[in-house]
Amino acid sequence: MKEKSDLHIIVLGTAAGGGLPQWNCGCVNCSMARDPASGLRPQSQSSLAVSLDGEAWTVFNASPDIRQQIQDNRPLQPRRLRHSPIKSVVLTNGDIDHLAGLLVLREKQAFTVFSTAAVGRIIADNPVFQVLDPELVSRRIVAIEEPFAPLPGVEVRLFAVPGKVPLFLEEGEPDLGVEGEHTVGLELKTDTKRLYYIPGCAMLNDAVSARLNDADAVFFDGTLFSDDEMVAAGTGHKTGRRMGHMPIAGEGGSLDALAGLNIRRKVYVHINNTNPIWRPGSARELVEGRGFEVGFDGMEVCL
Amino acid sequence: MKEKSDLHIIVLGTAAGGGLPQWNCGCVNCSMARDPASGLRPQSQSSLAVSLDGEAWTVFNASPDIRQQIQDNRPLQPRRLRHSPIKSVVLTNGDIDHLAGLLVLREKQAFTVFSTAAVGRIIADNPVFQVLDPELVSRRIVAIEEPFAPLPGVEVRLFAVPGKVPLFLEEGEPDLGVEGEHTVGLELKTDTKRLYYIPGCAMLNDAVSARLNDADAVFFDGTLFSDDEMVAAGTGHKTGRRMGHMPIAGEGGSLDALAGLNIRRKVYVHINNTNPIWRPGSARELVEGRGFEVGFDGMEVCL
Repeated sequence: MKEKSDLHIIVLGTAAGGGLPQWNCGCVNCSMARDPASGLRPQSQSSLAVSLDGEAWTVFNASPDIRQQIQDNRPLQPRRLRHSPIKSVVLTNGDIDHLAGLLVLREKQAFTVFSTAAVGRIIADNPVFQVLDPELVSRRIVAIEEPFAPLPGVEVRLFAVPGKVPLFLEEGEPDLGVEGEHTVGLELKTDTKRLYYIPGCAMLNDAVSARLNDADAVFFDGTLFSDDEMVAAGTGHKTGRRMGHMPIAGEGGSLDALAGLNIRRKVYVHINNTNPIWRPGSARELVEGRGFEVGFDGMEVCL
Repeated sequence: MKEKSDLHIIVLGTAAGGGLPQWNCGCVNCSMARDPASGLRPQSQSSLAVSLDGEAWTVFNASPDIRQQIQDNRPLQPRRLRHSPIKSVVLTNGDIDHLAGLLVLREKQAFTVFSTAAVGRIIADNPVFQVLDPELVSRRIVAIEEPFAPLPGVEVRLFAVPGKVPLFLEEGEPDLGVEGEHTVGLELKTDTKRLYYIPGCAMLNDAVSARLNDADAVFFDGTLFSDDEMVAAGTGHKTGRRMGHMPIAGEGGSLDALAGLNIRRKVYVHINNTNPIWRPGSARELVEGRGFEVGFDGMEVCL
């Protein structure tokens, strides 16, 4: 029998911005993801759904793929003529791959959007988000470290992690590794469990490391395996760090930084289309050999 | 052998805003579309792709589902490491279901967006659209009736049809049936063919009717079968006309208005989830019996 305090997590989307395949990309992974025979299934953009009872859900980041993600995951589908089990959305930054799904969640449905003031301002500054009827959709601004309850029985806090402003707000070279309200990690506690969702993190500092220790699960930024991966693949001129994402491997990578901590389940999410961990091979073996899991769309984690 | 002047059309998405199923809707059609055994397949949001040679494509309206639509239609997939056969997007209004897909078409890919000034202003007024790098993505404002070429060899004109402003710009009760730049029809001509795409139309007046006569194909607003359909289904309190869409059936409906014209292929698109023509039955029989086709995702029309 299920215990009442079980925490149910569904990885709705595992890919970084653009998804796998990305619309204009013909890299090895994207080509494989277009070929059903390749064994590499398409993966949608980064989002997590969490529930205590399987009936009421909160969604962390609203990806542009959320309509398909709901279609692919029955627990998130309506139970009546007009209804949604999605009671709230929590945003960790203002990137398009975390925000655009709000435009899908229209049609007179009540829910609450939680974000920092910086991300809330992006929503307020873009009139298109007025499709979310303010009489039905509450926008709740939360301060860094302020506890709130996107579902009854859970306590969530947003905390600053090193990052940068969203790409479309960059003016010239952005400050990297700045802690503020633009990129946050998410901590969720129930009476017995503690989990983290950190889809973007430029660097793992001592404060964040100490916080993650003894967690039941950490869903962490797996954007790039190597810092220069997109340059090497010919799909971009930026390093991971320039994009606000620490690499998995190498010096200062998340493999080393997280491996020393006591964490029950470590799952990579927000994985870029160029990342070799998508497919069997040495990169994936290294990651799995060190006790990490590679997320996938529809992955269910029960804590 | 294919003739050079063939016009290839793919219906990328057939459903009205929200798609089929809509995320928060449990109506008969939406429930069927969630059940693979029902025979009613899910349908994505309204968009058309057009090509002369099968290599370069223009897309009419960028739906929020465009990433999946590209994944489902091989002709729109990249042929190289970074590439897209999509050379341009033409917008017929500023509704979210026609606009939000622009946020997906990021990632340093050059193409051109054509729209009226009214719709262009919506894009300019929302900083999120700055994800489309202005150095790569040209925004071309075109006047009503001004000819332009979203692909070499085709001539397109936007023309005013009775409609209203997008929902998120409504202030109080909007003017209905007003002709202006907010809702337009699209006329496409090649040296031998002429087609129309009109996903939103509040009323078919004499000028529009005369224009459509002798067309090779008309893809027309099939939002609602009956004007009060959403009220009757319990999914909304607005009539079709209040939403800027004339019904298919009944007095002043598109069945009667278009049936008297000489049009080679008449295809309903932009079909709401409540519309009974999605499934077998008397409504669909009536439509097909009068020589209309019901569009579906992936439908190919060669003219």
